[in-house]
Amino acid sequence: MATATIITIGDELLIGQVIDTNSAWIAQELNKAGIFVKRRVAVGDDENDIRCTLDEESTHAEIILITGGLGPTNDDITKPLLCTYFNGKMIVNEDALQNVKYLFEKVFKRPVTEVNLKQAEVPDVCTVIQNKRGTAPGMWFEKEGKIFVSMPGVPNEMQGMMKEVIEKLKSKFQLPVIIHKTLLTAGIGESMLAEHIKEFESDLPPNIKLAYLPNYGMVRLRLSSSGYDKEVIENKIETEFEKLKSLTKEYLVTDVDEPMEKVIGKLLSAKTKTMSTAESCTGGYIAHLITSHAGSSKYFKGSVVSYDNEVKENILHVSNQTLQTVGAVSEETVKEMLKGVLNILKTDYAIAVSGIMGPDGGSAEKPVGTVWIAVGSFDKLRMTANSQTLKLNLRFDRRRNIQITAMNALNLLRKFIMEND
Amino acid sequence: MATATIITIGDELLIGQVIDTNSAWIAQELNKAGIFVKRRVAVGDDENDIRCTLDEESTHAEIILITGGLGPTNDDITKPLLCTYFNGKMIVNEDALQNVKYLFEKVFKRPVTEVNLKQAEVPDVCTVIQNKRGTAPGMWFEKEGKIFVSMPGVPNEMQGMMKEVIEKLKSKFQLPVIIHKTLLTAGIGESMLAEHIKEFESDLPPNIKLAYLPNYGMVRLRLSSSGYDKEVIENKIETEFEKLKSLTKEYLVTDVDEPMEKVIGKLLSAKTKTMSTAESCTGGYIAHLITSHAGSSKYFKGSVVSYDNEVKENILHVSNQTLQTVGAVSEETVKEMLKGVLNILKTDYAIAVSGIMGPDGGSAEKPVGTVWIAVGSFDKLRMTANSQTLKLNLRFDRRRNIQITAMNALNLLRKFIMEND
Repeated sequence: MATATIITIGDELLIGQVIDTNSAWIAQELNKAGIFVKRRVAVGDDENDIRCTLDEESTHAEIILITGGLGPTNDDITKPLLCTYFNGKMIVNEDALQNVKYLFEKVFKRPVTEVNLKQAEVPDVCTVIQNKRGTAPGMWFEKEGKIFVSMPGVPNEMQGMMKEVIEKLKSKFQLPVIIHKTLLTAGIGESMLAEHIKEFESDLPPNIKLAYLPNYGMVRLRLSSSGYDKEVIENKIETEFEKLKSLTKEYLVTDVDEPMEKVIGKLLSAKTKTMSTAESCTGGYIAHLITSHAGSSKYFKGSVVSYDNEVKENILHVSNQTLQTVGAVSEETVKEMLKGVLNILKTDYAIAVSGIMGPDGGSAEKPVGTVWIAVGSFDKLRMTANSQTLKLNLRFDRRRNIQITAMNALNLLRKFIMEND
Repeated sequence: MATATIITIGDELLIGQVIDTNSAWIAQELNKAGIFVKRRVAVGDDENDIRCTLDEESTHAEIILITGGLGPTNDDITKPLLCTYFNGKMIVNEDALQNVKYLFEKVFKRPVTEVNLKQAEVPDVCTVIQNKRGTAPGMWFEKEGKIFVSMPGVPNEMQGMMKEVIEKLKSKFQLPVIIHKTLLTAGIGESMLAEHIKEFESDLPPNIKLAYLPNYGMVRLRLSSSGYDKEVIENKIETEFEKLKSLTKEYLVTDVDEPMEKVIGKLLSAKTKTMSTAESCTGGYIAHLITSHAGSSKYFKGSVVSYDNEVKENILHVSNQTLQTVGAVSEETVKEMLKGVLNILKTDYAIAVSGIMGPDGGSAEKPVGTVWIAVGSFDKLRMTANSQTLKLNLRFDRRRNIQITAMNALNLLRKFIMEND
């Protein structure tokens, strides 16, 4: 089985100034191609540390993918270092040079500097992977049966190169099939779930692995297996996956690896229904989650982010009396917000949320983490005020409180749509 | 100098199902305490790989911080493995047991299962770091002068333990001061900026390091230095930082390490002014960025996410004629959206955006990545329609297009506020 290690280079990763999203993306792509990622390492812009990491990682895997440190500035030392490491000398790559000139003239519309032109130089011992989205070319080295590929750290540029890299890797290795099947549950904790499927887990065939991935109060369960006979593995994993689905039926959100907001998008699309949100404490985060997905304009009409009570009153028509008597964080308020947004945005369904995300703003009666959610539908609301509400008492930091509130609101709407068909 | 390495454990990191945010957070905390993070490594839930990584990383650093693999389920193998690795045997920790029982009875309000009670078992050769936010205790081991600390992978639980870990580390090492000074620029590319400050960079004293951190079309510049005399380092870095600030004056957004939306929050707070947004293509993302920060309710009143043209017309009062003739992605539309949101949300300033984020929805005339932004103010608008507009032609994926649009819109508003004082 071909194994890979991902090295990310940059001091910013070691002081925590930047979160490394490249490794996860690369890992996904390699995995899909049947390459097993064994390790991921981050090191700083330090020559000795990088050399030592290259030596060490080549003992762990056959494929060493490197990102970062290819920028035009002096703190980017990866390229000269790789040149020495592989005993090469620097030469100008004609294609890369044309690319730099093209990008500056046609795309950036800025004069090319000397520093930029240096981007077209590469070690003579590498094969160049062209970078259509930026100036730093990728470099493919081979040494003692190991493959080293260096790519820029800019996600968009690296991603643009990976297709070619994967193709080249496929031609070098006979790659197995890796299959993952993931389902998402909500409303049950990790340990309760483990207790619930204890027997299933211990009866799993040895080449099928089960993983628990808790996140935002939901738990994803993943079955994985690999081998060379795609059909055999698929059948085996499918059988176990069906068992798992029926065991977790009560909590099952989706049986594909997709986020909650996409599940709702599919539900609404299938019914050609629309939705909207009225958000106070989540400040537009639910709308953002939904609109992150292409095609959401088919079912999402918009949102009123009523952060200020004035907006709740003037736009959503929450009554002043409600706000004065029971306050903005109350069941009555979210119900009125819901009614308001359904009426003014004219959607079939809606979500309304109001709460205290912290760190300030809590009181003895309504501590930080108190949240009210309402979900409901238009037609029924006009007659019978058909809505459903939920109160949360969260105990995390601001960001996490916002995320968990959003997930709970979306899950409540999902269940509402399914139950009120 | 005390050096650390961070090991994160979990198959989900190697197949790219989860983005590792823990490492960045831990790195920040260690850095503040004067501990230099040399490496970060991610490995899967595999006994051999974890053992090998523990051996290897202890040759690189004195402090080895480990997260993940402490859950109650069978795929979590870190605890028994550490027990064997450090030649211990499992015993029940009384405090941890009380904590598990307390959490289930009082917080989760669910029955304690056998699996949960096992969480209170720890190797007898470790010092326990209590976990007040979850059931898995942290474990502190010492071996041959190296310190190993194992913590849960759940961010909130790990973060709750780190204070105690840092205190214990401080008592073990004489730690130096590490100082970073960061400024944020916008409107100039990385290589142009490098050209612009070339001399400054080559004249920097050897113990001061300059790093370029490009992100979302902006570039952060960071100066770093470390040593044992805090005052000396602070003065040295301050002198260079002042030079850098004056050199980059034209592009300078802020001279502290904070995001764009916080800069605007400070500007507005200082003037006791308010703002709102009218978002089409960013779908609430700008509102979300602003409301991610505590205290934003002082200056942010709300947003109308007008994803559908109906919402642009009915709520923001964009004229049907504008939408029919020049379309939703046009200078006229964003100007009308701006006027609409200023009028209905009654704020001093506002942002309006409309564009095509992709991958679909483009045309020859308005390809994917076409974005119009308007920013402006209320009083002046009523008289003279005081606003400023910007057109972008982006060429990234949907997510990145949304992020870059948001950053450009915020930067345009920032400049507008400063220029229209």
